[in-house]
Amino acid sequence: MSLLVVGSVAFDALETPFGKTDKIVGGAATYICLAASYFTKSVNLVSVVGGDFLPQDIAMLQRHGVQTEGLQIKVDEKSFFWSGRYHNDMNSRDTLATELNVLANFDPVVPDSYQDCQYLMLGNLAPGVQLSVLERLTNRPKLVVMDTMNFWMEIALEDLKKTLAQVDVLSVNDEEARQLSGEYALVKAARKIQAMGPKTVIIKKGEHGALLFGPEGEIYFCPALPLEDVFDPTGAGDTFAGGFIGYLAATNDTSFGNMKRAIVYGSAMASFCVERFGTERLVDLTEKELAERVARFLALTYLEQPLSVA
Amino acid sequence: MSLLVVGSVAFDALETPFGKTDKIVGGAATYICLAASYFTKSVNLVSVVGGDFLPQDIAMLQRHGVQTEGLQIKVDEKSFFWSGRYHNDMNSRDTLATELNVLANFDPVVPDSYQDCQYLMLGNLAPGVQLSVLERLTNRPKLVVMDTMNFWMEIALEDLKKTLAQVDVLSVNDEEARQLSGEYALVKAARKIQAMGPKTVIIKKGEHGALLFGPEGEIYFCPALPLEDVFDPTGAGDTFAGGFIGYLAATNDTSFGNMKRAIVYGSAMASFCVERFGTERLVDLTEKELAERVARFLALTYLEQPLSVA
Repeated sequence: MSLLVVGSVAFDALETPFGKTDKIVGGAATYICLAASYFTKSVNLVSVVGGDFLPQDIAMLQRHGVQTEGLQIKVDEKSFFWSGRYHNDMNSRDTLATELNVLANFDPVVPDSYQDCQYLMLGNLAPGVQLSVLERLTNRPKLVVMDTMNFWMEIALEDLKKTLAQVDVLSVNDEEARQLSGEYALVKAARKIQAMGPKTVIIKKGEHGALLFGPEGEIYFCPALPLEDVFDPTGAGDTFAGGFIGYLAATNDTSFGNMKRAIVYGSAMASFCVERFGTERLVDLTEKELAERVARFLALTYLEQPLSVA
Repeated sequence: MSLLVVGSVAFDALETPFGKTDKIVGGAATYICLAASYFTKSVNLVSVVGGDFLPQDIAMLQRHGVQTEGLQIKVDEKSFFWSGRYHNDMNSRDTLATELNVLANFDPVVPDSYQDCQYLMLGNLAPGVQLSVLERLTNRPKLVVMDTMNFWMEIALEDLKKTLAQVDVLSVNDEEARQLSGEYALVKAARKIQAMGPKTVIIKKGEHGALLFGPEGEIYFCPALPLEDVFDPTGAGDTFAGGFIGYLAATNDTSFGNMKRAIVYGSAMASFCVERFGTERLVDLTEKELAERVARFLALTYLEQPLSVA
């Protein structure tokens, strides 16, 4: 089924212990679309860039089957820009610059050709903008997945709660789940967030894997692959979300059992993302690489024989 | 097969955000023996206590099938005592008191009746003492598992390395693995530790589960159960080790495939341990409770159908 993705398409400048980049293509929607494109060839983008965005970068998305009719280009403005420096542990970072530019007044346009989308991914953006995209669809999609971050909890909590009440799945990291719920234990945090709207909650724990909490109290856990080096964690969460919803859209099955499989694919895509700077590793993955990576995930928790005590 | 356990049998006084205790029974060997007793009824203890240790606490161990012929009682001395306070996150703690007492000059005695033990658990102790137990066995056991902590890396690193060279499996937590190896990434840390002696390395990550690294580069991961409350983490690592080696001794199978199953049992035992103060939850578990707990662990990573993209 068709997937609609809204989120930022932007420039990032990154510093990690392994090196630094000039302005490179980034943004939540970029990572989501690229990851999803390995599962479904019907990905429809809603976003905005400035006149500084390069045609070749839009062409890169189109080459991955991403429809860009909903990508506004404001020729007299500049694209959203974020710059950050990661610490040695790769778990914490300093923001060096945030220039909203075209995102400051982003009014999303949903083209008529996108109206039949059954899967909607609300990538990290102001929650009011996320909600407006949902409202501009004539029919509610079969599944709405939302990503957000602590920044919006601090400056737009009421908007965030309004949007949250309308979505099926929320994807956040452990610290965000704790902040949103006021609970330290993730089991309790998930339950409180479920009461705010989303029947299903994903809590991402970075190198410690991801938890999926279902509507009937089900819990599924997918480990992260133990990696020798995390080169650049930028976009890992968005890539995870893109693999997750891309797999669901491709299989058109929103059961909890299928979401568990989708979490494995999301985790596999994220494990590629962190191996190089920015989107570098995501632009030319092969089916074979993806299949091998998923097999490594499954091997990690696989028991050959049932458990028994002699 | 018979299991020999060496380690401390002691008193602890604990403070957690949920309350505090007077002096209660603790010590690495106590937790190890209790956990192992749910798998094998042939557990042989080597340790030392003072005249202040209560007969009823020794009887409690005996009721679980633990042989105490190797438990020395120094009537004119006091038992090892540790007191600590856990912080709100339960991951960090302050040591309030450490009184070595009988442990200061502990010279372990291995009774003749223990000589046929095929499984040896070297619980956390001075590494020189751990080594002396191994040396006092006429025949080398089939499997030697060692637990240790950062304290010994700081004050007895050479002894630690000597002992490490003689063991089959090392069980440490993530910070200890990083300190011992000088590597941040756990995959690299495990490889360096394997080069020091133990062909198999277990890295415990607390609420984030445990990793098992095998001699052929195999990796297995067992998640921790997402718990609503961790009441008291004291002894969780020892309990994990006791369940691990208890299962191996009971099944008498030291293959990597069986160690994976043993990790699940160790994790299940540890998940009980943290539910109450000290050994409270470990003294009267039922087989049914253990089976249900293990089933919950398996459900956490279970996929009903193979993965496939439509």
